Amino acid sequence: MHFPIVALVGKYHDTGIAGPLRALARMLQASGREVLFEAETAVNIGLTDYPAATVDEIGQRASLAIVMGGDGTMLGLARQLAPWNVPLVGINHGRLGFITDIPLESAEEAIAGMMEGNFESEERILLDSSVIRGETTMISALALNDVVLSRAGLGGMIEVTVQVDGLYMSKQRADGLIIATPTGSTAYALSANGPILHPSLRGLVLVPVAPQALSNRPITIPDHCTIEITLTRAQGGRDESASVHFDMQSWSSLKVGDRIVVRRAEHTIRFLHPAGYSYFSTLRRKLHWNQISGAAVD
Amino acid sequence: MHFPIVALVGKYHDTGIAGPLRALARMLQASGREVLFEAETAVNIGLTDYPAATVDEIGQRASLAIVMGGDGTMLGLARQLAPWNVPLVGINHGRLGFITDIPLESAEEAIAGMMEGNFESEERILLDSSVIRGETTMISALALNDVVLSRAGLGGMIEVTVQVDGLYMSKQRADGLIIATPTGSTAYALSANGPILHPSLRGLVLVPVAPQALSNRPITIPDHCTIEITLTRAQGGRDESASVHFDMQSWSSLKVGDRIVVRRAEHTIRFLHPAGYSYFSTLRRKLHWNQISGAAVD
Amino acid sequence: MHFPIVALVGKYHDTGIAGPLRALARMLQASGREVLFEAETAVNIGLTDYPAATVDEIGQRASLAIVMGGDGTMLGLARQLAPWNVPLVGINHGRLGFITDIPLESAEEAIAGMMEGNFESEERILLDSSVIRGETTMISALALNDVVLSRAGLGGMIEVTVQVDGLYMSKQRADGLIIATPTGSTAYALSANGPILHPSLRGLVLVPVAPQALSNRPITIPDHCTIEITLTRAQGGRDESASVHFDMQSWSSLKVGDRIVVRRAEHTIRFLHPAGYSYFSTLRRKLHWNQISGAAVD
Amino acid sequence: MHFPIVALVGKYHDTGIAGPLRALARMLQASGREVLFEAETAVNIGLTDYPAATVDEIGQRASLAIVMGGDGTMLGLARQLAPWNVPLVGINHGRLGFITDIPLESAEEAIAGMMEGNFESEERILLDSSVIRGETTMISALALNDVVLSRAGLGGMIEVTVQVDGLYMSKQRADGLIIATPTGSTAYALSANGPILHPSLRGLVLVPVAPQALSNRPITIPDHCTIEITLTRAQGGRDESASVHFDMQSWSSLKVGDRIVVRRAEHTIRFLHPAGYSYFSTLRRKLHWNQISGAAVD
Repeated sequence: MHFPIVALVGKYHDTGIAGPLRALARMLQASGREVLFEAETAVNIGLTDYPAATVDEIGQRASLAIVMGGDGTMLGLARQLAPWNVPLVGINHGRLGFITDIPLESAEEAIAGMMEGNFESEERILLDSSVIRGETTMISALALNDVVLSRAGLGGMIEVTVQVDGLYMSKQRADGLIIATPTGSTAYALSANGPILHPSLRGLVLVPVAPQALSNRPITIPDHCTIEITLTRAQGGRDESASVHFDMQSWSSLKVGDRIVVRRAEHTIRFLHPAGYSYFSTLRRKLHWNQISGAAVD
Repeated sequence: MHFPIVALVGKYHDTGIAGPLRALARMLQASGREVLFEAETAVNIGLTDYPAATVDEIGQRASLAIVMGGDGTMLGLARQLAPWNVPLVGINHGRLGFITDIPLESAEEAIAGMMEGNFESEERILLDSSVIRGETTMISALALNDVVLSRAGLGGMIEVTVQVDGLYMSKQRADGLIIATPTGSTAYALSANGPILHPSLRGLVLVPVAPQALSNRPITIPDHCTIEITLTRAQGGRDESASVHFDMQSWSSLKVGDRIVVRRAEHTIRFLHPAGYSYFSTLRRKLHWNQISGAAVD
Repeated sequence: MHFPIVALVGKYHDTGIAGPLRALARMLQASGREVLFEAETAVNIGLTDYPAATVDEIGQRASLAIVMGGDGTMLGLARQLAPWNVPLVGINHGRLGFITDIPLESAEEAIAGMMEGNFESEERILLDSSVIRGETTMISALALNDVVLSRAGLGGMIEVTVQVDGLYMSKQRADGLIIATPTGSTAYALSANGPILHPSLRGLVLVPVAPQALSNRPITIPDHCTIEITLTRAQGGRDESASVHFDMQSWSSLKVGDRIVVRRAEHTIRFLHPAGYSYFSTLRRKLHWNQISGAAVD
Repeated sequence: MHFPIVALVGKYHDTGIAGPLRALARMLQASGREVLFEAETAVNIGLTDYPAATVDEIGQRASLAIVMGGDGTMLGLARQLAPWNVPLVGINHGRLGFITDIPLESAEEAIAGMMEGNFESEERILLDSSVIRGETTMISALALNDVVLSRAGLGGMIEVTVQVDGLYMSKQRADGLIIATPTGSTAYALSANGPILHPSLRGLVLVPVAPQALSNRPITIPDHCTIEITLTRAQGGRDESASVHFDMQSWSSLKVGDRIVVRRAEHTIRFLHPAGYSYFSTLRRKLHWNQISGAAVD
């Protein structure tokens, strides 16, 4: 049997998902599977008739986690489950996302098919990053989308030097610098003029945000590289005037001289999709490629 | 009475417009106006019960020209009518355009309102350009969107020097160089990373296409400037390997040393819109600004 | 006599300019002109043998102000002198700037020539902006380069609505939004992919920084337009999480609902350049257009 | 002994390289190596005292080929030598290139060091492409930089559909579409807003040129993918109005319906560099990253 133990996770504070989650649970249970509810989800939707589990317990026990929410909910859970090798499926409650690509309306049918083995599997890397001051590691974090170094709000650019596998690459002055995975290449990095990286590409992309040098362009490197960014100058000479973001988690105590070291995490995460899934189809839908958003005449 | 003599013009070879054009003609005639049909349109839709007129006759006699078609049809007629100061209205048969912004479904109602004086007027400039070889003018043409100098298809970039009001601006190597009016700024120039120019801006924009120098950026200049582009090198040393386009009209016999002189035309063209028209609304619709075509998380 | 009273202003805390400033003062005095030293400059370089004057006194009395420093020093003084109609000349101590275009080495010769009337005059507009909360004006400021609304450092985009002359233009989600004058179009706006605006263009440009919608492009509008930006959402639901910058002056207490109203200032500023000055020459030098910074083969 | 048989190749029609090539030949021979001169090079510089060899003979016999010329000369020879697994070294006669990175002045010293084993080796992929009409292969070619599908010169965009490993990716309307290797990512693709791909990245990038849809962005895919582009529409309905380019080699007989199939070639090419070579250093030099080509204030 595929996926004998299935965990269900819902977007925090979204009560509209109670009904669909219960229906899904019933269906899974009826097929002979064990169903776990993520503890906060269970509280959130007032559910008591299924066993509740922490994320760690889900990691230890579940053979699949089904997430109902948006890409953000999915990303958050994926980071937490990364060490446990539990694959994830995403059901979207609103507008479809990049990684939560099953519409709520057809969720039961899609999940039923996947339970019979009709699914596609896709592996995504995470970034494992640390901020190092002198010899001390100040903070470490995982990111599935991107690590972003950015100026604080009060004007002025930051200046960094970038090393790749110990080799000096460049000195950059910009609003910020994004290091994105293929997953993150369609998020913030895309807004900053970065390229799309196909999920199966073994690469990362460094994308400057509003760089002072016009020839400072996105550069794609193999994902086995270690990237080290040193904050060499922050605006106005003030010390704490830059911050670093690991997906949505921010750390704003960067000082000049701090080094951010970014490498591919040891663990990866697997997303499952209904059979027939196409990454390109998701791109076309999300980027409106079927429409002509430009303006040629006739 | 507003617009006592109205000319009707349809997209060439589009027979689906026969019915709507006849209906419009009846309505205008019923309101006491004289109706002229552009001669080719009359032949195209097999219409004999209204006087047919050449475009020049329309220019001389009509107080308004109503165009049913796309932006391309509208642009073509606008260029021809430019010397005559006849305003134009555009009804769009298919997907709404930038300048043909009245949907066919509501055309009668919209036109009826405009006949009572409920309209907005917008003036657009044209470009008057010549290709000069030595002392000889090889070709002259009007353009409402843009003048484009571009390489021929066989690889290699062109090299040009650009002068503005007799002052040397730059030497450029690129696939091409676009000089766009505000009207043209949302057409080809936008695809080549040019800015949008509001129609009331007294400016033109020079947009390089795939320029070799990464710091070669679009530059917006006042529309009273005279721009002179000299083809200094074409690919492969061959002589005739670049072409120039005035809107959709192409001239492919450019030789190294030829100068393309571009200036604002003496005449302008007026587009009329139903009362309540908003340029920004057109932008939002055409560029899908109401949608999020990017990809932030959640 | 051209410029009978000349004020001299130096970059604050730059002691290397003492000698050149004194030499300039002697030359001007020898030619029968009255020389004023800006008070802080005089203190800074330990000068007591010329009359010191506040910036306001310079505004009231001087017929010309000569600035020795970088573009930032020049911008700062220009904002202060704007109401007084005193033209400015810029001498650059280091790398030449966009508006401080006389190299220190040839400053005496250049100024001598200008004193004889050999100069070009160029008028630049300023922006007059206010932040309005309800009925209250929270802050007002002048800017010569740009007004920038930007997110604070802690992740997440801001959301604004933009109105132009009272007409709704767009809702935007981005890191920030820049409103730049022609002077500012070659500063921060250029890094954010904005077009260059020629100084004689009567226009402003709105440039989004890392916009979420890929079709959200720079738009150039006439400089007589009033732009109103309303902060409709800031990141994380926190109230004070966006800031506004008027050139280098920052105000970081923006709240959701605040409106930033930007219009052309009543006063303009005049920059004088030695005869033969070319804006395009400055562009070529600053943007390295004489070099090929791209990468075509052979 | 490293490299017992060395072939020397010079840029065609560049007579200034005769002296340096002879000096190099003497040095290599003095060290006990066999020296071959590429036959056309020998004729070009009037050399008769060394054995001349065709490129195929060089491929069969030489253990190293030294090229004196620009990146174009190097690319041409690399394509020809690809099946033979002969590494190449590039000496640049003029401005340094991306792959010809040894300056003529220090060539003897650099080559001497490399003969002693002090070199870095870098592997680059090539693209193997065919144009297929129905069942017939019309043309096949290798490319080290890029395969470019582009409109012919007479205005109008081309329309293509793109498939990757048999999966439909997108329909695109644009001036052209570039498929670039990491080597080509710093050539034409960079001008069209493509990202830089590090040479060790196992990827290719598809870069549209002036795409009509503003959300049509560069996409990087693994280099083991097969890309199939079908020309679905060319401008003006004319049949032969698009061309395809394999590096500098052009084929201009494309018809609507033709398919261009692009995949990584079986063979790769190795470039050798003096010890201490840094790809990033080349990037910094070619893209002027040490200079500030933007324009922030002060």
